[in-house]
Amino acid sequence: MITLARPVRFEEVDPAQIVFFARFFSFAHEAMENFFGELDGGYPRLIGERRVGMPAVHVESTFHAPLRYGDTVRIETSVARLGRRSATLRYRMFRQQDGVLSAEVRHTVVCSNMNLIASCDMPDDVRTLFETHIEPGP
Amino acid sequence: MITLARPVRFEEVDPAQIVFFARFFSFAHEAMENFFGELDGGYPRLIGERRVGMPAVHVESTFHAPLRYGDTVRIETSVARLGRRSATLRYRMFRQQDGVLSAEVRHTVVCSNMNLIASCDMPDDVRTLFETHIEPGP
Amino acid sequence: MITLARPVRFEEVDPAQIVFFARFFSFAHEAMENFFGELDGGYPRLIGERRVGMPAVHVESTFHAPLRYGDTVRIETSVARLGRRSATLRYRMFRQQDGVLSAEVRHTVVCSNMNLIASCDMPDDVRTLFETHIEPGP
Amino acid sequence: MITLARPVRFEEVDPAQIVFFARFFSFAHEAMENFFGELDGGYPRLIGERRVGMPAVHVESTFHAPLRYGDTVRIETSVARLGRRSATLRYRMFRQQDGVLSAEVRHTVVCSNMNLIASCDMPDDVRTLFETHIEPGP
Repeated sequence: MITLARPVRFEEVDPAQIVFFARFFSFAHEAMENFFGELDGGYPRLIGERRVGMPAVHVESTFHAPLRYGDTVRIETSVARLGRRSATLRYRMFRQQDGVLSAEVRHTVVCSNMNLIASCDMPDDVRTLFETHIEPGP
Repeated sequence: MITLARPVRFEEVDPAQIVFFARFFSFAHEAMENFFGELDGGYPRLIGERRVGMPAVHVESTFHAPLRYGDTVRIETSVARLGRRSATLRYRMFRQQDGVLSAEVRHTVVCSNMNLIASCDMPDDVRTLFETHIEPGP
Repeated sequence: MITLARPVRFEEVDPAQIVFFARFFSFAHEAMENFFGELDGGYPRLIGERRVGMPAVHVESTFHAPLRYGDTVRIETSVARLGRRSATLRYRMFRQQDGVLSAEVRHTVVCSNMNLIASCDMPDDVRTLFETHIEPGP
Repeated sequence: MITLARPVRFEEVDPAQIVFFARFFSFAHEAMENFFGELDGGYPRLIGERRVGMPAVHVESTFHAPLRYGDTVRIETSVARLGRRSATLRYRMFRQQDGVLSAEVRHTVVCSNMNLIASCDMPDDVRTLFETHIEPGP
């Protein structure tokens, strides 16, 4: 599990005074980028130089409690499922101040050759990273 | 079913040259706002004056084909499920030029009193709108 | 002058209940894309196929009156200054319902070869478009 | 001067592979929020509880060099001008890895009562914060 915490920004909050629901998917991607920070050169080098990306094929989110301006979101990223060419990342997003679970996002990505936008086998370092952070079985 | 079509905007496209996945949820909300345009005063009056909003409790999306800059997205909005205080909106998002399905989003919202951020019964005009656009059974 | 009008979207409004100031620059770019809609293939073909883009070198905005959710913004785009390789676009953004000027943005762009991210002379059709919409002198 | 540094995020980059120009104003606001972090409760408490905000009346930016995915932006925030009810914040945005100046933003804000969206005198702690970070004279 890799953790990222950062304050909610003013523009992420909508006129109903809560973080706009689509922003949770931006949070998820930001957490994924942070997760890949463990690789040499991180996601920028992976997608930019090595031309291996992780486009989404399925995303699912359950919203439990709102985030507001002044909150810090703490995102725990782990790997819920690992296949040969795909993986499901799970992000648990908490309000840092009271530990309440705000949202849980499941994000299924397919390892892809970004020149072709076609699936490809995972590079070894990517697979190892996913394996390192896979959730323990029941 | 209510339809909205509009061009993909430059800033919605990411460095991989495809619409960033979180933007599909912005598209969904935009389509929902357009859907409520059938009410007097639309979503602005519903949420602003009448203080009735539709926060999300669950969202799910399957991505089938990318959208690129230059594409127009056509979004078909219908009601997949209708409860007493909640509903599931379904958005089918097509590339207008070739009719290919790009993404399908299911968006479960809870009718809420926005002063309390607590669920409430649906006002009659909202229920009627949802009923009018409910998907035909099998 | 080319005009674009569209409703303010929910997520463009910040917790202070007014359109977030950075969104006015998104509006400006959207209006620029609409402006280039007069070219064959529009901005997508210009930047995507012909590899000619219009990156900003200077932007300036004066904010006169806020936009709120429920407002429609009407944007009038004209050319305030035209050089050999650069131009200044001017966007006047009005609240449609009462005609009040909300913001005025000046956006200086440099015609650029996007493969090199280096300035280049304007293609003839781009120059003609700019000339057509240049503001009348005093 | 108060400094904030953080990586460019994937979705901030446009299809031309450079940070979208409107994002620099989001960066500016994020830096302003960080600047107010020196106040007790920061900008969230200032605008949320004390109902004192800093809406923009004028913004100006010069773009010198692009930011790309993989870059970290370092933002130096200082006060270029201080009036009774208004101030001009200056943000100098650098590419962290080579120290190149990417953009300079000047952001004139008016201290405002957010219940009325009307200007008001600056609270003492806000004035002191601005005075502490005013740029040295020539």
